[in-house]
Amino acid sequence: MAKKPVRRPKPALRKARSRTDHIGIIGLATMGPALALNFASHGIHVVGWDYDPRLTHAFENRLRPKSGVHLVYQLSELVQLLPKPRTILLMIRSGPPVDSVLTQLYSLLDTGDIVIDGGNSDFKDTERRVTEAGSRGVLYVGCGVSGGEKGALTGPSLMPGGNPEAWPRIKPLLEAVAARGSNGKPCCCWIGPGGAGHFVKTVHNGMEYGMMQVIAEDYDIMRRGLGMTPAEIAQVFEKWNKGRVGSYLLELSAKILHLKDPEKDRPMIDSILDVAGQKGTGIETILAALNLGVSVSIIGTAVAIRLMSKRRGEREQIHDVMKPKRFPLKVASRPKFIEMLGEALHAATLLIFSQGFRQLQAASAEYGWKLPLAEIAQLWTGGCVIRCACLKDIAAAYLREPDLTHLMVADGIREEILRCEDSLAEVIAAAARARIPKLTLSAAHEYLLLMQDTDLPVNLVAAQRDGFGNHGFFRADRMGSGLYHLSLDD
Amino acid sequence: MAKKPVRRPKPALRKARSRTDHIGIIGLATMGPALALNFASHGIHVVGWDYDPRLTHAFENRLRPKSGVHLVYQLSELVQLLPKPRTILLMIRSGPPVDSVLTQLYSLLDTGDIVIDGGNSDFKDTERRVTEAGSRGVLYVGCGVSGGEKGALTGPSLMPGGNPEAWPRIKPLLEAVAARGSNGKPCCCWIGPGGAGHFVKTVHNGMEYGMMQVIAEDYDIMRRGLGMTPAEIAQVFEKWNKGRVGSYLLELSAKILHLKDPEKDRPMIDSILDVAGQKGTGIETILAALNLGVSVSIIGTAVAIRLMSKRRGEREQIHDVMKPKRFPLKVASRPKFIEMLGEALHAATLLIFSQGFRQLQAASAEYGWKLPLAEIAQLWTGGCVIRCACLKDIAAAYLREPDLTHLMVADGIREEILRCEDSLAEVIAAAARARIPKLTLSAAHEYLLLMQDTDLPVNLVAAQRDGFGNHGFFRADRMGSGLYHLSLDD
Repeated sequence: MAKKPVRRPKPALRKARSRTDHIGIIGLATMGPALALNFASHGIHVVGWDYDPRLTHAFENRLRPKSGVHLVYQLSELVQLLPKPRTILLMIRSGPPVDSVLTQLYSLLDTGDIVIDGGNSDFKDTERRVTEAGSRGVLYVGCGVSGGEKGALTGPSLMPGGNPEAWPRIKPLLEAVAARGSNGKPCCCWIGPGGAGHFVKTVHNGMEYGMMQVIAEDYDIMRRGLGMTPAEIAQVFEKWNKGRVGSYLLELSAKILHLKDPEKDRPMIDSILDVAGQKGTGIETILAALNLGVSVSIIGTAVAIRLMSKRRGEREQIHDVMKPKRFPLKVASRPKFIEMLGEALHAATLLIFSQGFRQLQAASAEYGWKLPLAEIAQLWTGGCVIRCACLKDIAAAYLREPDLTHLMVADGIREEILRCEDSLAEVIAAAARARIPKLTLSAAHEYLLLMQDTDLPVNLVAAQRDGFGNHGFFRADRMGSGLYHLSLDD
Repeated sequence: MAKKPVRRPKPALRKARSRTDHIGIIGLATMGPALALNFASHGIHVVGWDYDPRLTHAFENRLRPKSGVHLVYQLSELVQLLPKPRTILLMIRSGPPVDSVLTQLYSLLDTGDIVIDGGNSDFKDTERRVTEAGSRGVLYVGCGVSGGEKGALTGPSLMPGGNPEAWPRIKPLLEAVAARGSNGKPCCCWIGPGGAGHFVKTVHNGMEYGMMQVIAEDYDIMRRGLGMTPAEIAQVFEKWNKGRVGSYLLELSAKILHLKDPEKDRPMIDSILDVAGQKGTGIETILAALNLGVSVSIIGTAVAIRLMSKRRGEREQIHDVMKPKRFPLKVASRPKFIEMLGEALHAATLLIFSQGFRQLQAASAEYGWKLPLAEIAQLWTGGCVIRCACLKDIAAAYLREPDLTHLMVADGIREEILRCEDSLAEVIAAAARARIPKLTLSAAHEYLLLMQDTDLPVNLVAAQRDGFGNHGFFRADRMGSGLYHLSLDD
């Protein structure tokens, strides 16, 4: 494809008065154009470039006159058109493409320029790039961006971290385009040094996996257990959405369940295959948790279910020879049971947040990030995929107790979990008997049961380990006094 | 500590007639001495060395005259005393220590010598070392060794893999010391090239985590749910151990539950803290599965529970403000419910094996290892920690169908799982209502439910992903026709 001729900068670009009026955007696939239009709508001049001129061209064709977005077909031109010190945002696929673009960029940039990676990069890569960029005088920022294409256009939730010198300069830019949270303020705050911003985005996504799955399990129990139609379930979700368990994902699910298949006379959901992919942040959440020695058992099950969903052919083979047993879902009162499903969802959601925030707290301590957990919860109240009613309470909890280890014990959260726990237990028991899958709801309940238990049968596991491997165990009545061994004579 | 003077080789070493009569053992902590005595008891001459002369000295003091084990205090001496081509077994901590010893060894070895790593090395490290050793003319083998100290002494289960040229030479040595399986043959077979041996050992350990935890959960339900004493539960385990669910770990658990605390008038188990560590193979199983895109959800929960167990202080804090609710375990018939617990354990064990063997099969295909799954199941019938009655049936299943993707559908396995599944569901439901943790039993049941289901609510997850992220979904009625998108107007 022929390259477009190099264009003269538009007058608007020359007239720029402040260095914070400008941003360069690299990557014009989906999120890049949406953010470009968002920046431009706030009077910030945008210069955009993509490695693939077809994407640039496609975006150019969509642009209205005087859009404030100026597209170029050479990376060097993008750099030349931006006033120094420059601010350049990468909206490209994470991994090697980022390093490839950075190599090109470093030969063009000057000391004091800022590069922001707005993709879902692994936080360890960001950690490395902050240092590498720093050695070249470039201020590097890894910024989590949540909200999808629509959020990027109308107001995403932003999680910048990295070189702290960059923050004062990018703050007005990012705050201009960010969503507004429950307190009316921009959904954006400085997360911390190094890879902190991308780490927080990773855990955000991990919790997102969990939240999506528990909604799906509630849907399934109503659908296959209670025999409700998608439209009836959508109405339940809409009702719940007005209350404490309300969330963007619940609202979205209701909309989905109302959709009709344009091709067939049936609900859209019934035409959708039970296969869901993933792009890696769920798995990265698990890997990071294993490194920190904390459990993300709930998030882990949601990731596992997606892996199983992809094995569709294997499930068909197993289904053919092991037809699932189905039993009627026995409920005393249907309206009461539906209410219990809402409470189960509420408890599970709070436990997912407890687990995710525990991981954030562990990372903060381990890496010395001093993560502002209250502000993080607050910035998630708007713009992002996991925004929900309870995040306001979570923000309040961390505002009161910034060093809270376990969110589940915080005032206002604890009572809610305990209030809804009976329903969670009952839903799991009923679904187990009816043979409806509910692994993520179960994992949420078990996280509570295991973490509030000081008498776990893990003592038998410790004894087994000593029995076959001589690994030793601790005595319950003499903690900290070293390892003991069994006297098994055989 | 002063080094012991270098000793002359013992006459036995000089009289050696065959190169396969000799083995050098590096590492004399726990497993090394046990294996040394095992080799020596089969007429194989052993030369032993450890980096730490205190360990060598301690072992020397335990040795009887004419033990057939000759200890040295210099690595070079160990190499000199072994007839060429040499066979040297490393029984040292995995990770950097292995590479450190190898660096020293390579400067002393000759072309055609064999090095066997008998530790729990990461299979990717072994993969690399096979290549590195090969470039120096050394034949490298990564050998999984299971059975703990006692197994090493009386007959372990051995999983060697790596450079196939080594196999004919090490076969008589390894078969001499290995346990005997259910068919009377040595619990040892050539696993495959590269890191295959260590990979299989890793998954063995992952399944071991799962098996230990489900036994502990059954124990807990009897203990706290039915109010049985450890001795009563031990009797139940002993009875079960004679049947289809019989296993070394069940037998060991019964022995543990019979033990009295030598210091206090109570069962030993009640003096053991509910904290269990791990050495990494459980986590490696998870990491390897994520790389392969298969789910090890059951094993994952067992690993997660150990992580939670280590957070003892946090559990105490949560316990203090969120006392666990406990409700009586409601059972129609106590003897019948105990029987159901045995069936639940049996189904869960078979599902753990299904998941582990699925991972082995995926790795075999991905890495081109051609793993002999029937022989692997057979070699696990003796010596190793996961040996159990059902492995004979598993070996038979893979003998009939070497390309079986999912063990759970095999004749003889499928019927057992389906027979016991009702009990598994009922145990989970009852324990959920009584608030007794049962995460690994639940994960096992859910693996069955999810894998036999072709109508998972993951379709709602796929729709959500498209709704916020434009990721697309597949149509159920037109698989393979590419991605579709929702028409959400908002």
